[in-house]
Amino acid sequence: MGDIYDLSLLRHREKQGKIEVRSRMRLESIEDLSVAYTPGVARPCEEIAADPSAAWDLTWKGRTVAVVSDGSAVLGLGDIGPMAALPVMEGKAALFREFAGVDAVPVVLDAREPDDIVRIVEAIAPTYGGINLEDISAPRCFEIESRLQDIGIPVLHDDQHGTAIVLLAAVMNAAKLKGVSLGQLSVVINGAGAAGRAITYLLTCQEQDERCIPVGSIRVCDSRGVIYPGRPGNDAIKDEIGRLTNPEGGGGDIHSAMAGADVFIGVSKGGLLTAADIERMAPDPIVFAMANPTPEIMPDEAERGGALIVGTGRSDFPNQVNNVLAFPGLFRGALEARARRFTKAMQYAAIEAIVDLVDEPTPHHILPPAFDRSVPVAVAHAVADAARAGGVCY
Amino acid sequence: MGDIYDLSLLRHREKQGKIEVRSRMRLESIEDLSVAYTPGVARPCEEIAADPSAAWDLTWKGRTVAVVSDGSAVLGLGDIGPMAALPVMEGKAALFREFAGVDAVPVVLDAREPDDIVRIVEAIAPTYGGINLEDISAPRCFEIESRLQDIGIPVLHDDQHGTAIVLLAAVMNAAKLKGVSLGQLSVVINGAGAAGRAITYLLTCQEQDERCIPVGSIRVCDSRGVIYPGRPGNDAIKDEIGRLTNPEGGGGDIHSAMAGADVFIGVSKGGLLTAADIERMAPDPIVFAMANPTPEIMPDEAERGGALIVGTGRSDFPNQVNNVLAFPGLFRGALEARARRFTKAMQYAAIEAIVDLVDEPTPHHILPPAFDRSVPVAVAHAVADAARAGGVCY
Repeated sequence: MGDIYDLSLLRHREKQGKIEVRSRMRLESIEDLSVAYTPGVARPCEEIAADPSAAWDLTWKGRTVAVVSDGSAVLGLGDIGPMAALPVMEGKAALFREFAGVDAVPVVLDAREPDDIVRIVEAIAPTYGGINLEDISAPRCFEIESRLQDIGIPVLHDDQHGTAIVLLAAVMNAAKLKGVSLGQLSVVINGAGAAGRAITYLLTCQEQDERCIPVGSIRVCDSRGVIYPGRPGNDAIKDEIGRLTNPEGGGGDIHSAMAGADVFIGVSKGGLLTAADIERMAPDPIVFAMANPTPEIMPDEAERGGALIVGTGRSDFPNQVNNVLAFPGLFRGALEARARRFTKAMQYAAIEAIVDLVDEPTPHHILPPAFDRSVPVAVAHAVADAARAGGVCY
Repeated sequence: MGDIYDLSLLRHREKQGKIEVRSRMRLESIEDLSVAYTPGVARPCEEIAADPSAAWDLTWKGRTVAVVSDGSAVLGLGDIGPMAALPVMEGKAALFREFAGVDAVPVVLDAREPDDIVRIVEAIAPTYGGINLEDISAPRCFEIESRLQDIGIPVLHDDQHGTAIVLLAAVMNAAKLKGVSLGQLSVVINGAGAAGRAITYLLTCQEQDERCIPVGSIRVCDSRGVIYPGRPGNDAIKDEIGRLTNPEGGGGDIHSAMAGADVFIGVSKGGLLTAADIERMAPDPIVFAMANPTPEIMPDEAERGGALIVGTGRSDFPNQVNNVLAFPGLFRGALEARARRFTKAMQYAAIEAIVDLVDEPTPHHILPPAFDRSVPVAVAHAVADAARAGGVCY
């Protein structure tokens, strides 16, 4: 992979980053200027002053998302700060454009306190049609996202919900392939950060759409093993995860938790498991080892342990659980419907759209490929319909 | 002008605003994705984490300006709020792109308190290479701009300095045409808002470059007449303007102040003056009536009163005092030099560059035309040189 890193540095230097801003109007004469700018521009300003929803028609707002980060939890790099996070946020903005025709811009914040970040995002919100929170560390990301739900435009922390949506679509197709229902599956999740919590919520149908079926059983582990309510050192989030998944309170480590489980979901650190862990799972186990860049277990090792289906976060193995299947269409749909917020029904509509794009799941094909351009279109359509049906639109 | 307004509304609706975001990198394959995004993007992130100045090379930061407004003083429309101000800020962003190849994005703020706006701009600053404050009402704009000078990127309130820079270039060429020095001119300014104060500072050489020559005398009026120190109802700004221009304390209205003056500068309200006011000025007077869209006096009326030179803010008369002569090159130069701030020397370099672009001033040609593409190039070059010479660059 050394080549990819060197090539990336070279390309970033050549292009001075990845995105650029273009004018949509001609500006070649005084008349052009008086239409695009003063004095003509006074007219669209007055229209919006009289009816704020006109901003979606008359400005970039109706097609623009801000990718907002404080740089506190960037890729596998951790807390590198806002400026060093900028290449990731620019990349995300480029993906929005390429996958869903959404105009997206990075906004990196020199801020850490949830109060401060909430205030800043709220203040800049009139500029955009949606906010994609990105690479903000847990547990602050939960409070920040939750407090931003009423600012009048959809706000979604992609590391939580983007990942959870694609993962649940993968689990649903894996269950379909095995011929079982979600309710028959026992699941072990390793990792209780942003993605781990969101996956736990989806799999246990918290605040969930009526279409949701909870999995049969679920255990969530962090670096200290199985989470249970009242475990010493738990924060409020982990106590809640414990209550939702393991109220009776059994402990143990990840290896013992996996014994007899049908599904392993890793959103943690690489190189944690061996084939022996997979062998101790139920027959034909399902393994999603999504740690990046090194999965919790490599696909060949998991298959040696008897895994029926193996998914990772990587593009060089089958079944890539890639957020790009979700976030471009999610925001595109929300923008098209002029949604005020994301609802659970909109997220569930995205999951169903992704599930339905795989006609017949096979062990190496339980998700659509990242570059299937029908995915963002289908997701956007489903999300926009759900937003309109939910009555959350301007 | 009804046509222009209708056409502007139509175009804004057709195009859904004026600017869009494009990817500079190809994103058509898994390999493209791994160069522009994960995992390759980790490398430019690490470079910036190790050396923040690399952000100017590896991201859009080194070529990007945020156009920031709270929507409190928009065009002639006044306080229409952030969302209704968006078309103006998008327009400004489009001008940045078209005139100087600068990537600019609007950021409109639902915020009013200077403390709040300062905090927000400081927090978002790592994203950009410069901040153009726009359409923020006086006197808050003075405090906000001043408190943002140390955030590590250049911050300029264009309504103050952009206007003042172009106006001073115009006055200098007008003086050249008349064959007098600035020190021989008596000047009356009507309007003590954002632009009026900045013009007063430039004409009196406050915190000024050594190249600055103060005008012979200057009076500043607001709606209550000539400003003097200690005038009842003065705020701190007006007291300061009074001390700088009129320490002995004479009062009177704008009409009496203009008697015998060489130069009138209007940054106030339309339709204030008549030919009789111009007749009472010194011989061959110079009139800059920049209220928009209706000047303080129309050019034909001013000429009837004997004006030698008449400039307005409008594109349909000669001698348009248009900020577009200054701000694109100012920011372009600051970005090219990687300046930490704007200095007075950089502003003065811009003034000289604009002055020098008019070989031989005539009454109808004392400024270069707005669409002279050599202007932003020359301004940027002069500003970058001044930044480097001033030692304010990364």
